[in-house]
Amino acid sequence: MTVRFGVLGAGRIGQVHARAIASVDGATLTAIADPVNAAAVSVRDAYGCDIRTIDEIAASDDVDAVVICTPTDTHADLIEQFVRAGKAVFCEKPVDLSVARVKDCLKTVAAENGTLMVGFQRRFDPDFQALKQAIDDGKIGDVEMVTLISRDPGAPPADYIKRSGGIFRDMTIHDFDVARWLLGEEVDSVQAAASVLTDPEIAKLGDYDSLNVIMTTASGRQCTINNTRRATYGYDQRIEVHGSKGSVRAENHREANIEIANADGYTRPPLLNFFMSRYTAAYAAEIASFVDAVTNGTATVTTGHDGLMALALADAALQSVAEGRVVKLSEITG
Amino acid sequence: MTVRFGVLGAGRIGQVHARAIASVDGATLTAIADPVNAAAVSVRDAYGCDIRTIDEIAASDDVDAVVICTPTDTHADLIEQFVRAGKAVFCEKPVDLSVARVKDCLKTVAAENGTLMVGFQRRFDPDFQALKQAIDDGKIGDVEMVTLISRDPGAPPADYIKRSGGIFRDMTIHDFDVARWLLGEEVDSVQAAASVLTDPEIAKLGDYDSLNVIMTTASGRQCTINNTRRATYGYDQRIEVHGSKGSVRAENHREANIEIANADGYTRPPLLNFFMSRYTAAYAAEIASFVDAVTNGTATVTTGHDGLMALALADAALQSVAEGRVVKLSEITG
Amino acid sequence: MTVRFGVLGAGRIGQVHARAIASVDGATLTAIADPVNAAAVSVRDAYGCDIRTIDEIAASDDVDAVVICTPTDTHADLIEQFVRAGKAVFCEKPVDLSVARVKDCLKTVAAENGTLMVGFQRRFDPDFQALKQAIDDGKIGDVEMVTLISRDPGAPPADYIKRSGGIFRDMTIHDFDVARWLLGEEVDSVQAAASVLTDPEIAKLGDYDSLNVIMTTASGRQCTINNTRRATYGYDQRIEVHGSKGSVRAENHREANIEIANADGYTRPPLLNFFMSRYTAAYAAEIASFVDAVTNGTATVTTGHDGLMALALADAALQSVAEGRVVKLSEITG
Amino acid sequence: MTVRFGVLGAGRIGQVHARAIASVDGATLTAIADPVNAAAVSVRDAYGCDIRTIDEIAASDDVDAVVICTPTDTHADLIEQFVRAGKAVFCEKPVDLSVARVKDCLKTVAAENGTLMVGFQRRFDPDFQALKQAIDDGKIGDVEMVTLISRDPGAPPADYIKRSGGIFRDMTIHDFDVARWLLGEEVDSVQAAASVLTDPEIAKLGDYDSLNVIMTTASGRQCTINNTRRATYGYDQRIEVHGSKGSVRAENHREANIEIANADGYTRPPLLNFFMSRYTAAYAAEIASFVDAVTNGTATVTTGHDGLMALALADAALQSVAEGRVVKLSEITG
Repeated sequence: MTVRFGVLGAGRIGQVHARAIASVDGATLTAIADPVNAAAVSVRDAYGCDIRTIDEIAASDDVDAVVICTPTDTHADLIEQFVRAGKAVFCEKPVDLSVARVKDCLKTVAAENGTLMVGFQRRFDPDFQALKQAIDDGKIGDVEMVTLISRDPGAPPADYIKRSGGIFRDMTIHDFDVARWLLGEEVDSVQAAASVLTDPEIAKLGDYDSLNVIMTTASGRQCTINNTRRATYGYDQRIEVHGSKGSVRAENHREANIEIANADGYTRPPLLNFFMSRYTAAYAAEIASFVDAVTNGTATVTTGHDGLMALALADAALQSVAEGRVVKLSEITG
Repeated sequence: MTVRFGVLGAGRIGQVHARAIASVDGATLTAIADPVNAAAVSVRDAYGCDIRTIDEIAASDDVDAVVICTPTDTHADLIEQFVRAGKAVFCEKPVDLSVARVKDCLKTVAAENGTLMVGFQRRFDPDFQALKQAIDDGKIGDVEMVTLISRDPGAPPADYIKRSGGIFRDMTIHDFDVARWLLGEEVDSVQAAASVLTDPEIAKLGDYDSLNVIMTTASGRQCTINNTRRATYGYDQRIEVHGSKGSVRAENHREANIEIANADGYTRPPLLNFFMSRYTAAYAAEIASFVDAVTNGTATVTTGHDGLMALALADAALQSVAEGRVVKLSEITG
Repeated sequence: MTVRFGVLGAGRIGQVHARAIASVDGATLTAIADPVNAAAVSVRDAYGCDIRTIDEIAASDDVDAVVICTPTDTHADLIEQFVRAGKAVFCEKPVDLSVARVKDCLKTVAAENGTLMVGFQRRFDPDFQALKQAIDDGKIGDVEMVTLISRDPGAPPADYIKRSGGIFRDMTIHDFDVARWLLGEEVDSVQAAASVLTDPEIAKLGDYDSLNVIMTTASGRQCTINNTRRATYGYDQRIEVHGSKGSVRAENHREANIEIANADGYTRPPLLNFFMSRYTAAYAAEIASFVDAVTNGTATVTTGHDGLMALALADAALQSVAEGRVVKLSEITG
Repeated sequence: MTVRFGVLGAGRIGQVHARAIASVDGATLTAIADPVNAAAVSVRDAYGCDIRTIDEIAASDDVDAVVICTPTDTHADLIEQFVRAGKAVFCEKPVDLSVARVKDCLKTVAAENGTLMVGFQRRFDPDFQALKQAIDDGKIGDVEMVTLISRDPGAPPADYIKRSGGIFRDMTIHDFDVARWLLGEEVDSVQAAASVLTDPEIAKLGDYDSLNVIMTTASGRQCTINNTRRATYGYDQRIEVHGSKGSVRAENHREANIEIANADGYTRPPLLNFFMSRYTAAYAAEIASFVDAVTNGTATVTTGHDGLMALALADAALQSVAEGRVVKLSEITG
């Protein structure tokens, strides 16, 4: 069986997923939709699919699954439309910026017995998979503390920031998902600090660019997240998990694995500078995992619930910053 | 001029300082005091000094300076006794477990125009000095975020913990001092999480073994501290400072700089397992710095005020854990 | 324009090239030939090409270029057949095990004004390209000494060794090519030592498994090669170039970029264990380079002459081992 | 018992050994001798010893052992004088530049039943000791190939080179000793290449600055040495030993264990730039080992025979360069 895909949205991340679909066994790209025709044409020419409207794709008999790469404020509606149309749905994070709206959407998915995978590609990164495997193999004993350092090379444009829901919901949300994946227990409470250090324009937009988060679980496990929007040395993505028997960490990826030595010292190249080159393998593995779930009728690895929980953690962190106190996750999730 | 030293206390840390004094130019060990005669004899035999009582040392014309390595609850009294006796005083951290008592003690030092250096040896570690120099040289631009990871190989005995004032005042206090040294601004507020993950006995003593702290300055700079009492791979001491133009970090020290490769992978030895071997060079440089200040009549690099502030940060962190909220440092320092 | 390929030989390396052709823009796989039908079917099913005989491919109007992946003793004949048929030819190393036969073959290529690229994929590895770029950018000044360490995880089967021409012509030949690429001058003389340390069966076949080579150029530049057929920790591929202003080296590739720390130390995974996974990117870039040359009518990056010179260096090294003396390359090339 | 030392020669290496003696338990510095009075005074003032002539030291009842740090051409005579005087002798390498003279000298030592240790400090370096221990513990199985990379920051002055016996006898001699220590078998044959790449003045002196050596043992084990007189990035001292079950290597030492990341990449400081700072711990351990042998009447770890064999390997390498052939060690040692 081959899963026939429609991709909704031919922007940057839509192209990433189109490429992933083209490279994965058991998947084929049938149609692309985008209001900007040139973007749709570009995908069609690269991968040989049809151009259709979103509604046409929903009505297409030759489409089994869709990948939603449209603006965030359309995600929940599209998820509902497509699960009702009987399509398996892969949606880029976040489902919505409102916890209440996400909950409603997930109810619809459940009522329709739909398939929904929310895109948290980091879980599929080969290095992070190896790190998780080491934990699952007992190499570090019981997980005690997770340290996530995640730094962007530079801030996105102001227009993007305005619609993003803020750094916690846009950037940290990936770390919240990784935290849940690695802690082995749900987060119980959240505290955070956030400030603007790289660009005062970000403050004018009501957002932050530099933050630290501490999360704790009921048994006392802890996780910290360190984020900044500016790392001159590239896209810095580190995970370290400390356990009762040891520790495991994943290293960054560089532009090239060389080192130059001279009178100034020993220099290695900067890190890969872009999330799409850093996570190329992860995006392909993520789609392969979705294809596998659709083909075999099994549960997806990441779910709508995962999307909800990561968003709730973002809301809890925001509330912690605003109120200067520890916030229980249950205050957000109800 | 040679600074003639008396060392008060011939325990573990007293021996460290006796060795440091013996190895530093311009310093000589004149007398050791310890109620346990065997301990004093051991230092005398190693370094050729007299054994005297504390009061005899205070009255000795041939002693210019003392190093206080006695139990914590004697520190403040001894500082006062020796500044009144006209001796320059080097005191191991902390001055006292009570902020109020420290303040009183520092008033006495000031009234006597005394010389007091509080021991925070990490500032003198050659690698951390190189890291600080890189910051001061502008290599990373403005400091934005400091990440301190500091993990002990194992917890101290219960008896020690009982008298220690707890992990924040005993262990994290070093990180609080490093944070102040590197942030370039005073800390404004503190939040922390702490739990017991390694040994339930520690909970019975009312202490913690695993913690994370976030501190922020008035301008929004942030610092995190990660501590645990158990790291199977040795004494883990890492600093990373992130700035507007780059980042700098100091690496751990291993038992040996070798790597073995075989079918199981590439393995390097564990870290040095003990603070005294890890910081041998730092302890010597610290005493050398004190000798320099005493000889030249200049200010010591670390002061009684530094001791006070690190303790206040510990108290703020403890209060944050107890109350689940951000604590302003001014709540503690008044 | 799209270059339409026939691949001759559907074995391990034939499959590598088929995959590379499928992944490269401007190239398409038209036909596969292999006397073992199952092998050909496997390639056809994976990439959707025809199965034809070699002679059919030579006569095919819809084939522009061939990749020769057949046994070594057929290479020279096939090169001649296909340049005469007007096809661009990419041939896996070596052209032949006899320097005289290679020279004859290259004369035919020249007479037919044919296009011949000999496969030395390492030159196309992204890390080695970055290393070469650093040299060309003057980062290390004038090249003085090249150190090549190249170790296979394990020896090939006895049958392969018998037909391989021996380790110098089969394995070291890649290092000889890299040496020529990096030295910036032709090799003038060669000396070598070789022995059997991993398996006495290899000695029975008249071959070696462990060797070191020193090459010098007319101006005194030097290059060493270290080879062994057994590295328990994976496929070890290191290059270091030392120059008047500094040094540059390329690092190995691991199975995953993680590190586990525990009481035994810090362990990273073994190296990638297979030349095909280690050099996946290099094989794709190599074919892309060939496609570029065919499309634009430009010279190939690696040539028949490169194949001849690497083989001559292997012969010189063998003669050095046999005679216990330095051998001038001109003794071999005439 | 305390071993009372006289040091002959108060130059650079004499000061190294005086400091080592001062820092080692069971050793004391009694006298220094140097025709340059200021040099002798400097050592006396630093360590509180007498200044005596060499003959006075030979006649001193309060001197048990001497360290010979005089010019090379005096070594053999002084060894003979002092073993006849009943002193234990530690002599810096080489015993002499002539194999014949060394043999004669060793005969005298044997006839006098004297104690002679020849200084090859690298064997006492803690990292190299850990590497050797890993081999002895079976971590890499049977030793197969040793790779030594040893690069000086810069060439010594012309005057030094003239008297040095050339790079093989002056610099490579340390690597020859390390090779013998690690190979686990005596070297059977030697081949080498050498050239002048850093400074034509060195050629005028009849010496080389860049060289590679291959040594083989009777069973086929191999060792390579790579030397250059110019490494812009510091004093480069690497050892890698490859065995049947794995590999072990020792890393270089840097000025500081920090790393700076910015838009240019990740930079660590250069290596320690001087053999005396790189091998400080080794020099102290070497003297401690000598003191131990003298105190307990046991054999020294490195012997006059080791000095002879390293010199013979240097002569064999020189002859190989001159004659363009493999030279049997037995051709030199007779």
